[in-house]
Amino acid sequence: MNYIGIDIGGTNVKMALIDPQGVIINQSSIKTYGARRPEEVVADIVAEIARLSSGYEYTAIGVGCPGAVDSRRGIVEYSPNLQWRNVALEKLLNEATGKYVRIANDASVAALGETMFGVGKDYTDTAMITLGTGVGAGIVVDGELFEGYNSMGTEIGHTVIKVGGVQCSCGRKGCFEAYASATALMRETRDALQKDKNKESMLWDYFGFDKTKDSYDASKIHGAGPFACAKKGDKIAKKVTDTYIKNLAEGVINVVNIFRSQAVILGGGVCGEPTLAPRVQEYVDKYRYGGKDSLPSVVLIATLGNDAGVIGAASLVMP
Amino acid sequence: MNYIGIDIGGTNVKMALIDPQGVIINQSSIKTYGARRPEEVVADIVAEIARLSSGYEYTAIGVGCPGAVDSRRGIVEYSPNLQWRNVALEKLLNEATGKYVRIANDASVAALGETMFGVGKDYTDTAMITLGTGVGAGIVVDGELFEGYNSMGTEIGHTVIKVGGVQCSCGRKGCFEAYASATALMRETRDALQKDKNKESMLWDYFGFDKTKDSYDASKIHGAGPFACAKKGDKIAKKVTDTYIKNLAEGVINVVNIFRSQAVILGGGVCGEPTLAPRVQEYVDKYRYGGKDSLPSVVLIATLGNDAGVIGAASLVMP
Repeated sequence: MNYIGIDIGGTNVKMALIDPQGVIINQSSIKTYGARRPEEVVADIVAEIARLSSGYEYTAIGVGCPGAVDSRRGIVEYSPNLQWRNVALEKLLNEATGKYVRIANDASVAALGETMFGVGKDYTDTAMITLGTGVGAGIVVDGELFEGYNSMGTEIGHTVIKVGGVQCSCGRKGCFEAYASATALMRETRDALQKDKNKESMLWDYFGFDKTKDSYDASKIHGAGPFACAKKGDKIAKKVTDTYIKNLAEGVINVVNIFRSQAVILGGGVCGEPTLAPRVQEYVDKYRYGGKDSLPSVVLIATLGNDAGVIGAASLVMP
Repeated sequence: MNYIGIDIGGTNVKMALIDPQGVIINQSSIKTYGARRPEEVVADIVAEIARLSSGYEYTAIGVGCPGAVDSRRGIVEYSPNLQWRNVALEKLLNEATGKYVRIANDASVAALGETMFGVGKDYTDTAMITLGTGVGAGIVVDGELFEGYNSMGTEIGHTVIKVGGVQCSCGRKGCFEAYASATALMRETRDALQKDKNKESMLWDYFGFDKTKDSYDASKIHGAGPFACAKKGDKIAKKVTDTYIKNLAEGVINVVNIFRSQAVILGGGVCGEPTLAPRVQEYVDKYRYGGKDSLPSVVLIATLGNDAGVIGAASLVMP
């Protein structure tokens, strides 16, 4: 029997018909069309489910949704991206389709997908940390999503790793997110360029900046740059990447010491850098509580990519 | 029906016969006698249970034990205090008494006791943080102990809150424990005295140090001193306590952002300071993720004191 997995984003709603082995049979994407009434979005989703599942049977629908989602009660409490507040999404979809429905936060759902059908499939206890604009996290304990009291979600990105450090969007200073997000890596790169008054770093050429000019287009800076230049021996780039990896590792070890996760799955564009996982692994091996006397924690890179959302959503409703 | 709660420490084994409402009927304490074979300690415990329960019925035995305890399999994996390794304590006690037995880490057990019968009894999701020589933590989720993969225990004390900070006994630098333990408060007080070359702080007199001499007995320093002097307007003491409370609050907010605990229960001698909880509460109210839009988290002071161990142990086996 098959399942429908739905990954609602601010721009697109990705949807797929998925078999019990987590394999996508059919998939499609429809526009979310900004801040519409939930009933309108649900109507579009229901029409698309009918097209996707035509000629197939399916038993249940799983949904990943951005924002604060009370997965126990099936309510989207607050989603800034969708401009929804207290939407009983589970009930709406259930009434429109007659099928069993479960919803959860999108980062949590992606963690579940990677754990059931992706790189984490050999483990029951994992933490998935996605390094993007922010740092999202999903925790799986004993094969089930762990979302804290009232299923409010574990905000690992907003745990302080450096008291009094960089200002975070959440109001605190020194959050993990402010050091380990892709945004943070770009900020550190920009700061390093700013300090490089004699323009000695290879980063200037790498990003195609005109070194004869005082200004440059900071929007051209991306996370691959410092890793590429560090590899060629650039000291400034090396310092940026060393610091980034150390801070990332500190946050990862915090997660390991709390949840004792068998595997930490890293996701997001920064993970394209092949040295990332082995270098974080070194820190984890050396500094996790109990060291060699404790069970190992493996650092892995997510493999489902853009499909983690729909596959994870479907896995919410799998037995 | 009643229960036996046992709190094994390096020096004493505290034991109690406890009724279903968590009230102690009988209690006693026997010597652990250092690093003995588990069978010998168990034999003493069994004899004492017979005395304690004489004239009463009891159905089950719960045990709190220091160190790494695999509560799922009932094994004390490693306890430095007892010098035990891989001891099947649950099985030993079950075979000697014929009763149902459960064991868990002592910090976890105390958290469960405070949540079921102490200050946390109105809540299902709590975090108990004990500020002593180190920082111990026990997490209760939905009324049950949460101990991470393989029930290895959540080492909240060994999550870094200040990357590159004070060296911690676990090998990392900047752990929560290195800033929020009673030991840390005493270290900060000592450091402040060291820097106070002109001996202007009231702390010198408070601890009875002879200001005409260059040396003093650092072992006389205790955590109540800086709080008492700060209250009288001493700036040096105030800086010590302000920093201590801020760091403590940062770690508490980290826990709240991860577990979304309804209540954080602080334990340990430092909690005798009446301003502690309200000041940490202020930080939690201001900086927890979601702020006023999220559910509140209450900061409480543990009330069971030395009985938390036996009551918590008994609550392990209550239905």
